[in-house]
Amino acid sequence: MSNFIVKKYEYLKPYVPGEQPQDKKYIKLNTNESPFPPSKSVLEAIKNSSRPLNLYSDPDCVELREKLASILGVTKENLIMTNGSDEALNFCFMAYADKDQEIVFPNITYGFYSVFAQINECKYSEIPLNEEFEINPADYMGINKTIVIANPNAPTGIALSCETIKEILKSNPNNIVIVDEAYADFNTESMLPYINEFKNLIVVRTFSKSRSLAGARLGFAVANEFLIEDLNAIRCSTNPYNVNSLTIAAGIACLNDDKYYMDNCKKIIKTRERIKNELTANGFYCLNSKANFLFIKKKKMKGDELYRKLKIKGILVRHFNKKEIKDYIRVTIGSDRDMDIFLQAILSITED
Amino acid sequence: MSNFIVKKYEYLKPYVPGEQPQDKKYIKLNTNESPFPPSKSVLEAIKNSSRPLNLYSDPDCVELREKLASILGVTKENLIMTNGSDEALNFCFMAYADKDQEIVFPNITYGFYSVFAQINECKYSEIPLNEEFEINPADYMGINKTIVIANPNAPTGIALSCETIKEILKSNPNNIVIVDEAYADFNTESMLPYINEFKNLIVVRTFSKSRSLAGARLGFAVANEFLIEDLNAIRCSTNPYNVNSLTIAAGIACLNDDKYYMDNCKKIIKTRERIKNELTANGFYCLNSKANFLFIKKKKMKGDELYRKLKIKGILVRHFNKKEIKDYIRVTIGSDRDMDIFLQAILSITED
Repeated sequence: MSNFIVKKYEYLKPYVPGEQPQDKKYIKLNTNESPFPPSKSVLEAIKNSSRPLNLYSDPDCVELREKLASILGVTKENLIMTNGSDEALNFCFMAYADKDQEIVFPNITYGFYSVFAQINECKYSEIPLNEEFEINPADYMGINKTIVIANPNAPTGIALSCETIKEILKSNPNNIVIVDEAYADFNTESMLPYINEFKNLIVVRTFSKSRSLAGARLGFAVANEFLIEDLNAIRCSTNPYNVNSLTIAAGIACLNDDKYYMDNCKKIIKTRERIKNELTANGFYCLNSKANFLFIKKKKMKGDELYRKLKIKGILVRHFNKKEIKDYIRVTIGSDRDMDIFLQAILSITED
Repeated sequence: MSNFIVKKYEYLKPYVPGEQPQDKKYIKLNTNESPFPPSKSVLEAIKNSSRPLNLYSDPDCVELREKLASILGVTKENLIMTNGSDEALNFCFMAYADKDQEIVFPNITYGFYSVFAQINECKYSEIPLNEEFEINPADYMGINKTIVIANPNAPTGIALSCETIKEILKSNPNNIVIVDEAYADFNTESMLPYINEFKNLIVVRTFSKSRSLAGARLGFAVANEFLIEDLNAIRCSTNPYNVNSLTIAAGIACLNDDKYYMDNCKKIIKTRERIKNELTANGFYCLNSKANFLFIKKKKMKGDELYRKLKIKGILVRHFNKKEIKDYIRVTIGSDRDMDIFLQAILSITED
C-alpha cells in the first residue's frame, strides 16, 4: 500500500482467488468452473447482439430480467443483475451491515465474506461449524444479526434444508438473511420459492457455475421488491451500467437454452458421485457435497502436499491454508475424462 | 428504501444516468457516446475470443494491460483495468478519502463525484467555478485535500492546461490528485506523461467515449505502481474478476485499431466546431468545449424547455436541474447527419 491510502485500508487483505493460469497447460479443477462450454446460441447471440457497442448497455437489464423472471417464477422487480455474484454479495454487505449492524457467517465458508466485511468496515463474527463441518442451526436462531449462509456451503459442499433456513428466517424477522446459492443447481433445495413469504430473505445466484458463463461475469440477487430497491440504490451509487451489453446478450441466450445447462448439471452430479465412490473405496474421506466440487482428505497426507503433487502432474486443485481445513483439498468436478486423469494421478500420489 | 437498510444509506441519492431508451426511436445526443461503431476487428475478436467463457476471465487483464501500456508509453504496472471508468473513480474515492480525509471537486462537474463521496461517507466539499464556468486554480493550491478534476470538465467541456494541473500537484504533495480524462482524446492535453514525475497523480480514462465501447464497459486508471497497488487491493476486496473475457477481447482489438478511433475523434472535433459556429451565428452562447459535447444556452429560453421541445422532435439531449446551469443543455456531438437534424430542430424551436 502507498502512504496515501486512507488509514482504514492500511492493512486491507484482499481476497485471493484461485490461480488462473493463462497458458492452458493445466487440468483446471481449482475454481469450480463448468467443464462444459456455453451453448452455441450464446456465442451467436454475442456476435449478433442488436445493441451497438458504442451505446451504453441497458442499466436496468430489462430484457434479461424479464427472461430470468419467467424461468424462476418471479417478477422482474424481484431481480437485480450484477457483474458476477461477488458484486451482489458486496452490495448486500454494504446495504445490511456496518459498524453497528453486525453480520455473521460460518467460520468455514466462502472466503470472500470476511473480506467484504472488512472493506465495508462491518462488525462481524464467524460462527464455528461443528466437527462434521456442518452448520448448527441453533447458533443462528434469534440472534438479531444479519446472516450470510452459503447453501450448499463452500468449500465443504454440505447443504442445509429449506426447512432449517426458514426457521432461521422466522427467528430473525428484523434482520436480513442472505442465502448464497452459487452451487444450488447441483442438487440443493433452493430458497427461491420463499422470497415473497420472507421479507428478510435475499437469494444470491450466479451464471458462473451451472451456466458456463464464468468468463462473462453475470450474477443476480432475488428478493422482494423493497430489498431489490435497496440494492439498486447501492448499484446506482457505484456503477449503474454494471453489466455490459455482450454479457446481457449471453445471459438471455443462455436462459433460452435452459435444458442444456440443467442437463449438464445432472452429468456433473453423476460424475461427482462416481468420483466420490472411487475415492472413498480408495481410503479417502469425502464430505457429502451437494456442489460441483468435492472436499476430500487422505490420512497421513497433508492438504498442501496433495495440492503440490497434483500441480506437478498438471492438475490444479484448491488448498486453503486455514487450520481447521488444512488437511483437505477442494476438487472441482470436471469432465469425465479430466476426472479420470485426476483419479489416476491422486491414486498414484497417495500410493507412494 | 426498506426498513432493513443501514442508517447511513437511508437517504442515499443514487446517480441518475442519462436516459437510455431501448427502443431506438431517438437521435441520442444525451450521454456522450460515440456515433461511430467499433472497428470490425472488435466484433471479430469478441466472436473468436480464445478464452472459453466457462472459465473465469483473467483477473489481471495481463494481455490487455500490456497492449495498452505499449500504446500509452507506460508499463503494465502503471495500469488497472475497470468495469467502466466509474468503477476506477469509485476505487479512488474509497482509497483516498473518508470521514477524516477530505475530498474536493468543482461544484459543477461530473455529477457522480458527490455520489461517490456520499456512498463512501467521505468528508467532501465543492469548490465553485468562476462566472465563466472555469476552475480557478488558486482555489486548489496547497489545500491539503484529495482533489478530483475532470479535464476537460463536464458538462462544460472547458479544459485546464497541464501546466496548471502540475502546479496543483506540486502544491499538494501529500494528497492525491485524480484527473478524470474521460474526454481528453477530443483535444485536451493529457497528464499521462507525468504519472511518474508526480507520485500523487492518478489519471482515469475510459473506452466509452473516444473508443466506441460504452456498451462493453471498459475503463482504466494510470499512475505509479504504488498507487495502482492500492487500487488493486480495493478491486480484489470487492470484485477481482471485474472485467469479463468478452470485454478484454474487445479492448485488445480496439487498441490494435488505434488510428481508426483517433481519426474518429478528429471527425468529431471538426463536427463540434462546425456546429458551434452555426449555433453561435444563430444567437446561441456556447462554452469553449474540448470534449465530444457542447454546453449551450439561448437567451430567454429555459434549458428544460429546450430539452423538452427537442425530445418531442425525437432528439434527446441532457438538461441538469441545477441552479447555476439550469439555462443550459448539453449536446453530444453525433454524426454529421444527426447534428444537421439537431441544428434544424433547435433553430426551428428557438425561432418560434
